[in-house]
Amino acid sequence: MNKVKIGSVGLGRLGVRHAENIAGKIQRAELAALCDVDAAKLRETAGRLGVSRCFGSFEEMIASKDIDAVVLVSPSGLHTKQIAAALAAGKHVFSEKPLGVSVAECKEAEKAVEAHPDLVFMLGFMRRFDESYQYAHQKVAAGEIGRPVLFRSYSQDPEKFIEGAIAFAPHSGGQFLDMAVHDIDLARWFTGSEPETVYAIGDCYAHPEFGRYKDGDNVSCLLKFKNGCMVFLFAGRTAPHGYNVETEIIGTKGILRIASVPQKNLVEILDSHGVRKECSENFLERFESAYVNEIQEFVDCVADGRKPVVSVYDGTRVSEIAYTCKAAFEQGSLITF
Amino acid sequence: MNKVKIGSVGLGRLGVRHAENIAGKIQRAELAALCDVDAAKLRETAGRLGVSRCFGSFEEMIASKDIDAVVLVSPSGLHTKQIAAALAAGKHVFSEKPLGVSVAECKEAEKAVEAHPDLVFMLGFMRRFDESYQYAHQKVAAGEIGRPVLFRSYSQDPEKFIEGAIAFAPHSGGQFLDMAVHDIDLARWFTGSEPETVYAIGDCYAHPEFGRYKDGDNVSCLLKFKNGCMVFLFAGRTAPHGYNVETEIIGTKGILRIASVPQKNLVEILDSHGVRKECSENFLERFESAYVNEIQEFVDCVADGRKPVVSVYDGTRVSEIAYTCKAAFEQGSLITF
Amino acid sequence: MNKVKIGSVGLGRLGVRHAENIAGKIQRAELAALCDVDAAKLRETAGRLGVSRCFGSFEEMIASKDIDAVVLVSPSGLHTKQIAAALAAGKHVFSEKPLGVSVAECKEAEKAVEAHPDLVFMLGFMRRFDESYQYAHQKVAAGEIGRPVLFRSYSQDPEKFIEGAIAFAPHSGGQFLDMAVHDIDLARWFTGSEPETVYAIGDCYAHPEFGRYKDGDNVSCLLKFKNGCMVFLFAGRTAPHGYNVETEIIGTKGILRIASVPQKNLVEILDSHGVRKECSENFLERFESAYVNEIQEFVDCVADGRKPVVSVYDGTRVSEIAYTCKAAFEQGSLITF
Amino acid sequence: MNKVKIGSVGLGRLGVRHAENIAGKIQRAELAALCDVDAAKLRETAGRLGVSRCFGSFEEMIASKDIDAVVLVSPSGLHTKQIAAALAAGKHVFSEKPLGVSVAECKEAEKAVEAHPDLVFMLGFMRRFDESYQYAHQKVAAGEIGRPVLFRSYSQDPEKFIEGAIAFAPHSGGQFLDMAVHDIDLARWFTGSEPETVYAIGDCYAHPEFGRYKDGDNVSCLLKFKNGCMVFLFAGRTAPHGYNVETEIIGTKGILRIASVPQKNLVEILDSHGVRKECSENFLERFESAYVNEIQEFVDCVADGRKPVVSVYDGTRVSEIAYTCKAAFEQGSLITF
Repeated sequence: MNKVKIGSVGLGRLGVRHAENIAGKIQRAELAALCDVDAAKLRETAGRLGVSRCFGSFEEMIASKDIDAVVLVSPSGLHTKQIAAALAAGKHVFSEKPLGVSVAECKEAEKAVEAHPDLVFMLGFMRRFDESYQYAHQKVAAGEIGRPVLFRSYSQDPEKFIEGAIAFAPHSGGQFLDMAVHDIDLARWFTGSEPETVYAIGDCYAHPEFGRYKDGDNVSCLLKFKNGCMVFLFAGRTAPHGYNVETEIIGTKGILRIASVPQKNLVEILDSHGVRKECSENFLERFESAYVNEIQEFVDCVADGRKPVVSVYDGTRVSEIAYTCKAAFEQGSLITF
Repeated sequence: MNKVKIGSVGLGRLGVRHAENIAGKIQRAELAALCDVDAAKLRETAGRLGVSRCFGSFEEMIASKDIDAVVLVSPSGLHTKQIAAALAAGKHVFSEKPLGVSVAECKEAEKAVEAHPDLVFMLGFMRRFDESYQYAHQKVAAGEIGRPVLFRSYSQDPEKFIEGAIAFAPHSGGQFLDMAVHDIDLARWFTGSEPETVYAIGDCYAHPEFGRYKDGDNVSCLLKFKNGCMVFLFAGRTAPHGYNVETEIIGTKGILRIASVPQKNLVEILDSHGVRKECSENFLERFESAYVNEIQEFVDCVADGRKPVVSVYDGTRVSEIAYTCKAAFEQGSLITF
Repeated sequence: MNKVKIGSVGLGRLGVRHAENIAGKIQRAELAALCDVDAAKLRETAGRLGVSRCFGSFEEMIASKDIDAVVLVSPSGLHTKQIAAALAAGKHVFSEKPLGVSVAECKEAEKAVEAHPDLVFMLGFMRRFDESYQYAHQKVAAGEIGRPVLFRSYSQDPEKFIEGAIAFAPHSGGQFLDMAVHDIDLARWFTGSEPETVYAIGDCYAHPEFGRYKDGDNVSCLLKFKNGCMVFLFAGRTAPHGYNVETEIIGTKGILRIASVPQKNLVEILDSHGVRKECSENFLERFESAYVNEIQEFVDCVADGRKPVVSVYDGTRVSEIAYTCKAAFEQGSLITF
Repeated sequence: MNKVKIGSVGLGRLGVRHAENIAGKIQRAELAALCDVDAAKLRETAGRLGVSRCFGSFEEMIASKDIDAVVLVSPSGLHTKQIAAALAAGKHVFSEKPLGVSVAECKEAEKAVEAHPDLVFMLGFMRRFDESYQYAHQKVAAGEIGRPVLFRSYSQDPEKFIEGAIAFAPHSGGQFLDMAVHDIDLARWFTGSEPETVYAIGDCYAHPEFGRYKDGDNVSCLLKFKNGCMVFLFAGRTAPHGYNVETEIIGTKGILRIASVPQKNLVEILDSHGVRKECSENFLERFESAYVNEIQEFVDCVADGRKPVVSVYDGTRVSEIAYTCKAAFEQGSLITF
């Protein structure tokens, strides 16, 4: 059994995490190469993780025969063309979300994937690989909660990271595209349905800077899905308590809540503040094992010749929905899909 | 200090509870008379609570000199005219919600109240008198959570009472008027603002019977309030776990959740089902002390010559909003107030 | 139905609370008289609660024909003789714990009670009247948790009241007699059994002052009960978070925990301290309704000619056990009952 | 950097888990060999994990030059002599608890370890490597909870595994040695102190079979530690809800609780049973990452030439204490260390 040789692209915070995971925690895989434009960062990471091949150029990396697959953690604007180029070079591709920075780009990515049916393509909707979300999904799929009535999902980033969020605002696409996409993916996955209408609102409650991009620091939307399920999504940048990703699925026979308390760990503290649990700080902490599991799934798909459960069409569909939410928000109107 | 002599009208489940409370738990008050069309129920309750005067006719009761105030727990359709008649007879009035079964009726009630400025009128939004809601409101009013971003409130009745809900459906006005009014009242109370837009959806997920009245068994709406606050309300008849009234107020500096677990009491059970808390069964259990507190407030207002915090205009405003939510639901459209 | 006319003795914090409850929240009862040596306190309370008869002398009060029953919230050292005197004067008696300040005194109280079989005597073990403890007890009695294996109970007073606790230390009898008696009562009530052995330890962890009285600021003991049940009790004066009374009963088929989080109310706060619940401040807050319920039970027993579930022998037995725990602690030895 | 070549001994449930972890999740290590007397199990596991060298004989395995270290997950009775033999053969040793089946054996193990100061020896107290226990320990060590007052720790195995526990009873050494050793280790680690006295009780509450070995199915003990800290330990075989390992450390300035609800994951279920969390099933589920972390620490110590935080003396000391608890239980007496 040969190991899947992976070239990892992009060494931002999540990129480094993926590289570390591939180097140390993913079975049947080998971190064969790293690629980044920051030569110092590249050298430091490669040295630390024992990676022999480093590339400043993505094109050079995918030209290498020693690589079977690429993991793209590059800037969002590069995703579509890197996906297409890597597939054209015969490499399996795992790409962080988004698939592209416009629906048109997503469609291009679809074409590239369709042109290479023998290669594995997978998009990084890591929440699907979190043990708690998986456990809940099995229960829903098994009919344990009956018919889904309301799907509610929150994505909240801590206020303490607001400066980074403001700096990134010009390029993020806004809260619906940058944050709510994960909730949209979950809504489709849990309900097995698609949205029919959406109304979206929000505002700059604390940080007027987001207004420059026709965005709010906290936004929400209410969607009616085709199977009748109500879907309420909330995305915010000012969480006072920590990184809060929570989901509730109300069914006719049962209700599931995932992470309604964003607990850091199993420690409970009793002191002058009351009885309390400290919270997860960020996505890397909360989804630590989900990030491992998703890459493992990608590697297993490559190694076993399977297709991942997350397809390129999921990426396009989620983007289309997020853009429609954004449009509803900007126009202040009800939109029918 | 003379006790406030109260005539209580209507001996349904909540009516009996109010009568018991007035007889036994309300200070500065005396349960002086009971009124109901069911003579047997009247006799039994009067005997049990030691009430000497019983009336089959509301008009006769309010003609009595021995009564200072009435508590109306009669069918909704009678509220407006009973309010007007009681005030005209010089009695202070506490009325259960709704103020009337149409906005026009609410306006009539307003006029009746305005015509008797010396009499106390109070509407039964009991949640405002629940200790936990009061505690949360004080924190919000004190600015402890900063600016309100999202107000989310649920009213869920247990599936096990569905037959009663279906039987009552022709007269209930639908989920927005029968259930969500309490959440609408809370939203206005907590945010200090009024709605600007509303989009409402829902369906009959388990019980098609509600469809006959253009209603769903579970419905929700998303409102934008004038101060920018997002408001998401959910009302359902099929709660699998019990009576669930919960509210979350997300602010820029803190978040409050009231009763996110609808615990019956402080007992936690560890058995083959896991670690669990049993749930409140119904509104009488959950709001046991709130029902006492609200009547106490009414009596104190009468005794001390004060005006209650809940005015007749709150009743009208909440009804207007609920009718607008209902219209948005029936039309499937976005409505601007 | 005549109301039970009660004379309430002692206007400390709990005494005032009992007086307020009798005046306003207890059915079939009337607060007929108050007794305290502090004339100003007496006057203020009587005025506020509308009580016409005030006594500086206990003996004079029980000589009054206008009183049916007394509620003793006087200093512990007076309990036994006041119980005897009140019974001798033909009054029903409710006494706060302890029954006496020595086992000999408890035996005297027993004799006084036995000499007046037609009068109601009840001791104030209020926890038995808390809804959550009652709910748990019903489950245990119904066999829902199988055979009791371990009974664990904590009584913790907040550190912020430490000055009062230190001032009271010369007269309190120590933590086992002042605090753990409630847990001992619960242990006997839940297990239906009696202790066979006890080993007790503890120390002055923060406040050496308690050492003067051969006591610790935090103590614990492990008892083996005759039915085999293990009983672990902990009593402490330095709780950092609030007033914490919690109990766990581990059975062979289920486990119950009562108030394992000493939550103040149903509000959950999410802020920079994490996700938290604030805590009860003191016994008056935590056992607010239990204090009402126990007096209601006393009044109902008087009115209906019933005997209370808590007998004088429970008082003696609990005292004997607490003194034995204290002896085990002081001697550092294992004691067999 | 060469990888540490590990030979893993014993393919019971935990042995297989350790082998899988070493093969797939431990960095800087290689699963070089497997050893078990069950040839079929050996073949199956080796094939699945890609291990080329298999041994039916422990002696042959440690004679191999291709192995740097051994991980002992063999029957408890073999630990001491395998530790000694492996060290004598120049191998680093990680051994599951216990160090030996008697204090005399533990002392032999100490001598073997002392005779090879250049080799790493580590004992498997995995709880110290659980993230939540580590987080709590840092807080305690940093003084955040003040002076430790009470250390309480539970080890409960689910009733549903009782048949295996009964079958293993003749060889387990009893609940104190088989279960409470982990809690004893934690007590010493968190308090930094040693026991001075112990009183132990318990019984066969559901399963008389344990009585044959002078043991109970549920036992507990109360210890006074030299620094004054009270320590209460409980070990049981009949947990109705799942695998429950919880710890509470009450300090003068704060209280920490670790895993007071033994939640399976972050999913909360609301259904006819109330609001509930399902529980961990067994130690492999609860301590999944702790088992990885402890072997990683062992490997890092070998690779970096460090000594582990858990020494051979910890193993001896914990055994001595557990045997003393057992003696106190069997004799029904208070024992001073």
